Amino acid sequence: MSTSTTIDVPESSNIKGKTTLVAPPRPGGWKKGMAIMDFILRLGAIAAALGAAASMGTSDQTLPFFTQFFQFEASYDSFTTFQFFVISMAIVGGYLVLSLPFSIVAIIRPHAKGPRLFLIILDTVFLTLATSCGASAASIVYLAHNGNQDTNWLAICNQFGDFCAQTSGAVVSSFVTVVILVLLVVMSALVLGKH
Amino acid sequence: MSTSTTIDVPESSNIKGKTTLVAPPRPGGWKKGMAIMDFILRLGAIAAALGAAASMGTSDQTLPFFTQFFQFEASYDSFTTFQFFVISMAIVGGYLVLSLPFSIVAIIRPHAKGPRLFLIILDTVFLTLATSCGASAASIVYLAHNGNQDTNWLAICNQFGDFCAQTSGAVVSSFVTVVILVLLVVMSALVLGKH
Repeated sequence: MSTSTTIDVPESSNIKGKTTLVAPPRPGGWKKGMAIMDFILRLGAIAAALGAAASMGTSDQTLPFFTQFFQFEASYDSFTTFQFFVISMAIVGGYLVLSLPFSIVAIIRPHAKGPRLFLIILDTVFLTLATSCGASAASIVYLAHNGNQDTNWLAICNQFGDFCAQTSGAVVSSFVTVVILVLLVVMSALVLGKH
Repeated sequence: MSTSTTIDVPESSNIKGKTTLVAPPRPGGWKKGMAIMDFILRLGAIAAALGAAASMGTSDQTLPFFTQFFQFEASYDSFTTFQFFVISMAIVGGYLVLSLPFSIVAIIRPHAKGPRLFLIILDTVFLTLATSCGASAASIVYLAHNGNQDTNWLAICNQFGDFCAQTSGAVVSSFVTVVILVLLVVMSALVLGKH
């Protein structure tokens, strides 16, 4: 598309560190702005991911009536999918915290491609993890709300209203994480593409 | 990271098309190889996505016994999640078919960044779509296989064995699509990052 030719001129290593030739000053500022926005979005994603894990992990409701043999209780570890959700969102949150130093390096050195490349690849992997646990939890929450006639799975949200509200909130929070991660990948791709 | 300085030399437009100055011949070949691999992986992803949609869309099993009022039948449209799966995987397959021309452009012009940038952004979006529908279908398939004690949802795979096998196959096929899309995004990022 671009009709410009790129010629690589290797710097001699003894003048390195003193005279750094930054040819166009404006694109650097644009990249720095993107890197700062990347950092801020990452903070939001950390909050959303850890909030989702905490909200799902503390979901627990015991009904006020019980029979001789049963006490009716719903908690996140009734569902394998919800356990997966808590573990995955905690992992995604942990990754996002650990990625903050790389994001800071990208702010300090907006022209370095290493940190960006590292971040876009790992962001893509953890985007997949966050999406899969969010979507699988969403399908269970949908079943809990609506049930399924054909398989005779009854909706449980009439009884366990608080449990359903809390798990639904966790799913929404995980989708916020997913949206932010998609934005992070797209922004990194734009910065890598325009040079 | 790299200690080389990049100088953009705009070509004059009247010699364009005749004398294309390709300075380093080896990186171009490496990029061309990646572009060809991108195209081949894309073909595999198309097969996996359309196979998943077709396999799920044709899943239908009627049990050989029936009562006066009921005939026991399971098909993909018993589950809202499976309907979402069929529609989403068909959309992902359609996108991948439409993305083939851009992949071919990337083979012909390995140094052009436009098609790569276009592909990596849309690949990320459709990766999210494919992951979400695959994961939500997986959680329903898991429930159909194992049921859930606490909510009294019974496993249906004892009765509907063929139905379960076919939907499980569709989920596995969707995960193949997801893995290929992750590879495509990572490869595009590497090509955009190393210049």
